[in-house]
Amino acid sequence: MRVLGIDCGTECTGFGVVELCTDGKLSCLRFGAIKLSSREALASRLATIFAQLGTVIEQYQPDQVAIEEVFYSVNAKSALKLGQVRGVAMLAASSVGLHVAEYAPLSIKSAVVGYGRAEKHQVQHMVARLLNLRELPEPADAADALAIAICHLNTSATLERQNQRSATA
Amino acid sequence: MRVLGIDCGTECTGFGVVELCTDGKLSCLRFGAIKLSSREALASRLATIFAQLGTVIEQYQPDQVAIEEVFYSVNAKSALKLGQVRGVAMLAASSVGLHVAEYAPLSIKSAVVGYGRAEKHQVQHMVARLLNLRELPEPADAADALAIAICHLNTSATLERQNQRSATA
Repeated sequence: MRVLGIDCGTECTGFGVVELCTDGKLSCLRFGAIKLSSREALASRLATIFAQLGTVIEQYQPDQVAIEEVFYSVNAKSALKLGQVRGVAMLAASSVGLHVAEYAPLSIKSAVVGYGRAEKHQVQHMVARLLNLRELPEPADAADALAIAICHLNTSATLERQNQRSATA
Repeated sequence: MRVLGIDCGTECTGFGVVELCTDGKLSCLRFGAIKLSSREALASRLATIFAQLGTVIEQYQPDQVAIEEVFYSVNAKSALKLGQVRGVAMLAASSVGLHVAEYAPLSIKSAVVGYGRAEKHQVQHMVARLLNLRELPEPADAADALAIAICHLNTSATLERQNQRSATA
């Protein structure tokens, strides 16, 4: 199974494509970040995010997409800005028929670092280790996106094992 | 000039296409609302909004798109939900190269009713009168969308007159 993880942000949106191979190993196919200039008009920035995520989806053909649930600790102004990016990111997936899974930040960090309150650099280190990368994935938003993809692959694998057990029980 | 006005909402998004004819009269070409079931997955709801707005744009070929600026009096959770819809609506315009203008709710109501704190039914009545409609535009979200389009047409016409005056001065 191949998953595209997306870490939405108003200035920088990270993405990462991870595959769970048949031997049970995780493999990183691509990661990066879409950085946006606040000087550009909002509608045009949203078009850039949609187009770039669309290109990644077209090139890497993920089976599913995973995205972070949003904290409501931010203020309404930030939430609106983030919502605009998030809506467009979800659309990039759903417009080509891909399912979008959502995970709480705590679940993502727990899945990768084993500790829900992990710092950004801890996530980067563990993502590099799990995916056997020579260098830390940069920027941190790209590492977060890879972590979201890993979290979804772990969850899906666990669910599948449970289903197999119930089927054979 | 032909303008598509969009009134974004998490449950219902209104739209309306208004043309400023060469004789200076306003003409309503289409209005309606995209109602969304909260039982449907968010990503799929966003895809529906994008597709339906895309169809309206394709059919009516507006020159520009206008949208309401958002109040920050709502809470962060509502702002995030609204932002997701708003991002997708703006993308529907910008993805086909259309400019998106934004207006504050106060400006829109002032442009249509002449009073910034007007009630929903006052907006519906004035929109029906300005566009020479036999019945009140329903739902109210569709009337709001028509009001946004009228506001943008008024503003553009005023700007054009000013430019002509400066050119001849």
